[in-house]
Amino acid sequence: MRPETLDNLHRILGDKGIVTGADVHEGYYTDPRGLGDVRPNVVLRPASTAELSQIMKVCHDTAQPIVVQGGLTGLVTGARPQHNEVVITMERMNGIESIDVKAGTITVLAGTPLQVVQEAADAAGMVFPLDLGARGSCTIGGNLSTNAGGNRVIRYGMTRDLTLGVEAVLADGTVINSLNGFMKNNTGYDLKQMFIGSEGTLGLITRATLRLYPKPKTQVVAFCAADSFDAVADLMAHMRTGLGADLSAFEVLWAKTYAAVLSDVAGIKAPIPQGHAFYVLVEMMGSDAAHDTEKFETCLGQALENELIVDAVLSRSNAEIDALWDVRDGMAHAMGKQQPSVGFDISLSVADMKVIESELLRRLQAALGDVRLFIGGHLADGNLHLVAKSLKEGPQPRDTIQEIIYGWVGEVGGSISAEHGIGLLKRDYLAQSRSPAELALMRALKLTMDPKNLLNPGRVFDMGTAPMAGNAKAPTP
Amino acid sequence: MRPETLDNLHRILGDKGIVTGADVHEGYYTDPRGLGDVRPNVVLRPASTAELSQIMKVCHDTAQPIVVQGGLTGLVTGARPQHNEVVITMERMNGIESIDVKAGTITVLAGTPLQVVQEAADAAGMVFPLDLGARGSCTIGGNLSTNAGGNRVIRYGMTRDLTLGVEAVLADGTVINSLNGFMKNNTGYDLKQMFIGSEGTLGLITRATLRLYPKPKTQVVAFCAADSFDAVADLMAHMRTGLGADLSAFEVLWAKTYAAVLSDVAGIKAPIPQGHAFYVLVEMMGSDAAHDTEKFETCLGQALENELIVDAVLSRSNAEIDALWDVRDGMAHAMGKQQPSVGFDISLSVADMKVIESELLRRLQAALGDVRLFIGGHLADGNLHLVAKSLKEGPQPRDTIQEIIYGWVGEVGGSISAEHGIGLLKRDYLAQSRSPAELALMRALKLTMDPKNLLNPGRVFDMGTAPMAGNAKAPTP
Repeated sequence: MRPETLDNLHRILGDKGIVTGADVHEGYYTDPRGLGDVRPNVVLRPASTAELSQIMKVCHDTAQPIVVQGGLTGLVTGARPQHNEVVITMERMNGIESIDVKAGTITVLAGTPLQVVQEAADAAGMVFPLDLGARGSCTIGGNLSTNAGGNRVIRYGMTRDLTLGVEAVLADGTVINSLNGFMKNNTGYDLKQMFIGSEGTLGLITRATLRLYPKPKTQVVAFCAADSFDAVADLMAHMRTGLGADLSAFEVLWAKTYAAVLSDVAGIKAPIPQGHAFYVLVEMMGSDAAHDTEKFETCLGQALENELIVDAVLSRSNAEIDALWDVRDGMAHAMGKQQPSVGFDISLSVADMKVIESELLRRLQAALGDVRLFIGGHLADGNLHLVAKSLKEGPQPRDTIQEIIYGWVGEVGGSISAEHGIGLLKRDYLAQSRSPAELALMRALKLTMDPKNLLNPGRVFDMGTAPMAGNAKAPTP
Repeated sequence: MRPETLDNLHRILGDKGIVTGADVHEGYYTDPRGLGDVRPNVVLRPASTAELSQIMKVCHDTAQPIVVQGGLTGLVTGARPQHNEVVITMERMNGIESIDVKAGTITVLAGTPLQVVQEAADAAGMVFPLDLGARGSCTIGGNLSTNAGGNRVIRYGMTRDLTLGVEAVLADGTVINSLNGFMKNNTGYDLKQMFIGSEGTLGLITRATLRLYPKPKTQVVAFCAADSFDAVADLMAHMRTGLGADLSAFEVLWAKTYAAVLSDVAGIKAPIPQGHAFYVLVEMMGSDAAHDTEKFETCLGQALENELIVDAVLSRSNAEIDALWDVRDGMAHAMGKQQPSVGFDISLSVADMKVIESELLRRLQAALGDVRLFIGGHLADGNLHLVAKSLKEGPQPRDTIQEIIYGWVGEVGGSISAEHGIGLLKRDYLAQSRSPAELALMRALKLTMDPKNLLNPGRVFDMGTAPMAGNAKAPTP
C-alpha cells in the first residue's frame, strides 16, 4: 500500500481505527484451522457505516483488495488474509441498536457477537433462535454472510430465514440500506438476499434487522436407540407429524460416532448402552406447559410400540436436558479429536443417508485401505457432518478423500456444503454441487457488484478466465 | 415480428405451441383490472423448459420483448401485454413432477395452479400451506415470481420461505437449474432468490421444488371484538406468546370495514354486534388433538379477563370455522364493492397502524373533502389492505389519493407493497420505499441478467436513463 493511501485511511479512521506492521497481532490471521501463513500489513477498524463507506471508496480507487473479519470462527478459511489483502474488522461496529418486542425485531451492528444478541432478546422476554457452538465469539455479520445454520434449523430456519433487513457497503463504498423490518415487503428486488450467504464477496454487511420469537414455555428431550436407518427415518416422520411445529431438533449419531463420543470425550455418561445401530436426540419446544410433556411421551410411546425405537431416555429436568445435549454436542468434540482427519458438512436425501456409511467405506477402502468414518448430524434438515480418517502412517491423503467423498456427493445430487460455506477450502469442489450455468451467473453477479474483485477475492469461486467447471476435481468413478 | 422469426418459433413449438392474430382470445390480455388495451399479436405456448429455452434464444437474437403469463390473477398489471410484446404463457407447463413425503418436498411445473399443488400435497397426507383467494386459477410460477403472501404467512412464511429450489430460463435462453431440494445448501450464491419476487424481470421460472408440512391435527378459530388499537396489539402479543408456533392467523377489521362486510356482502351473519372499534379473527392450528382447544380457550379467557377483548365467539365445528373465515374473507369482497375507489396493500409498524385511520382521513379530507376509508388485514404480518374512496361526483382522483397515501407510507418508513408486488401499477411510487442506491443496484442486476431488457420490460421499474428517484411523485406535505 502506498504511503498516501495509508494516510488517507488514517485520516478517515483516526489512531484507534488502524493497526499496522508489528502491531498486527495473531488474532487477525488465526482461525479454527490455526495460524494463517500471511500476516496482514494493515488492519482497518471502522467504527461506523460512514467510515466503512469512506475506506471502501479509498480501497476501490486504489484497487486494494480486502478481507472482512467477524469473529474468525468460520470453518472454510474465508476470513484468513491472503497476500496483499488489507483486513477490515467489524470489531468496533458492535452493539444492539434497537429492540421492538411488539414487532418481534432487533436491529444490531454486524460486529455484535451472537451471544450478545441472544442475551438481549432474552432480557426482553423473547428468543433469537440462531445458536451454534461459537456463539460467544462469532458475530452476526459473519452468521449472515455465511447463512449460518445450527441446531434449531428444523423449527426456525437458517440465518437467512431469521433476517428481515440488511445494510451493506458495496465495493465502491455505496451504502445499500435495506434495513426493512417487515415480514412482507414486495417492493422490487429483495437485495438483502445478495449479501446473505455470499461470504462477503458481494458487499460488507454493516447492520441487520432480525426476527425475534416468543420464548417457548416447555422443553423436553429424549435420547433414543434404533436398530436400522429405516426405523430412524420413520421415527423422524412420526415425530414431525406428532409434534408439528414444536419439533425443535432431530439429531442422529451413527453407532461408531456414539462409541467415539463415549470413549474420547471427557465427562460424557452413556444415556443408553452401546450395541445399537443409531442414536437419536429428539427435542420438543412447546407452548403448552400443562400438556406438552404428555404429548411428547405419547408420541414417543407410540414409536416404542411400533418398534421404530428400541430404547429411550426422557429428560426430567433442565440438568438432564443439558446432559443429553452434551452427548449430541460431544459429536463435534469426538470428531475434532480424530485429527489428523478430513471433515465434511453435506446435505443428502434420506435415501442417500441410508447408504452413506457402506458406500463411502467401500470407496475409501478400495482406494486407501483401512479407513475410519464418523457420521452424524441434523437429520431432519438433511444435513450430516462426517469425518474420514485414513489409518495409514503419514499425512492424511486429504485430496483423495475429498475427491472420493465430494465425487459421491456430486453423483447423488447432494450438497458439498450444507451450512459451513465454501470459502477457500471447498472452492475447488464447488462444481460438484453447481452447474456451469449457475457458476457463470454467480461470476456475472460478482462482476456487476464488485467489478475490481476487491471483496474477499477468491473466496467461493475464482474470477480467473478458466471456465469454472474446469476447476472441479473429477469425481472418482 | 418478422415472418422468418415467426417461422423459427413455429418450428420450435409446433402448431399447438403458437397462437396468432384473430385466434388470440381475450384471456391473454385480461386481468383482475379488466380487459387490457393491447391485444397481443403472438402467444407462445412452450411445453417444456427446452422449448422455452429455444424460443428465448430466438427472442434474444431478434431483441423481441416478451411478457410471461401464469394465471393472470396479479393485481398490479404485471402480466398484461404492452405494445410490441409477445406473450409467453406457461399454461402447457402444468403438472406435479414428483412428491417426496419423507423429505417433505414437491416438485412442480411453473404453470401448475396453486390448488392442484395443494390437492396433491393433501392426497399425500401433507399440506402445502400457501393459500390465497385466486388458488384455483393462479399458478405456482406466478406465486413465486410475485413472492405471494396470503393468510398463513405468520405461521409458514411467504412463498419465498416455502421454496427450496427453482429452475428458470434467462433472457438469452440459458437454463439455470437450481432445483435444490435441501433446507441447507450453502454452496455459493442462492440464485433462486434472484427469480423469486422479481416479477419475471430477471428470468422465467419453469419448475420449483417446494416445502410440504405435516397436516395440523386441530384448527380453532375465534372472532373477537376490541375497543382500542392498543388492546388489539396487546392481544396479538398475548396470543403469540400463548400459542407459540401454533398461531396461524391474526386478521383485523377496522369498524367501518366490518360494517361494510355486514351491509354489502351477501350471506354474512354478524358473529358479534357492531359498535366496537376493531374485530379480530384469531386462528390456531395445532398438533395436540386432545388439548389444543383447551389451550386456545385458556388463552382467550385470559384475554377477556385482562380486557384485551370485550366479546368473543369460538368455533365449535368446521362449519363455524368456515363461517368465521367468511366474515374475514368478506373484507376483500366489501372492498371490491366500493368501486370506483383506490386500493392499497402496505406494510407498517404497529405504531403507525394505530394512527393510520385518523392520519389518512385528515390528509385525504383536507385535499378532497368527504372520503371513505376501509382498513383491515394481516396485522401480525405487519400488512394492511385499504381502500380509499372520494365521495365527490366524477372519476376518482386516483393520483391525488395515491400521492397522499404513498407519501405518508414513505414518510413513516412503511412498504408501498406488502404482498401484491409493483408491476406497472405502482412503479411510479417505488422510490417511496426504496432508496436511490437500492434502485440503482436493482437496475444494475437487471442489466446483467437481461441486458436487452426483454423480460417483462417496464415492470417494477423502468430502465430509462432518468434516475429512478426522479420518477417518484413527491410526498404531499
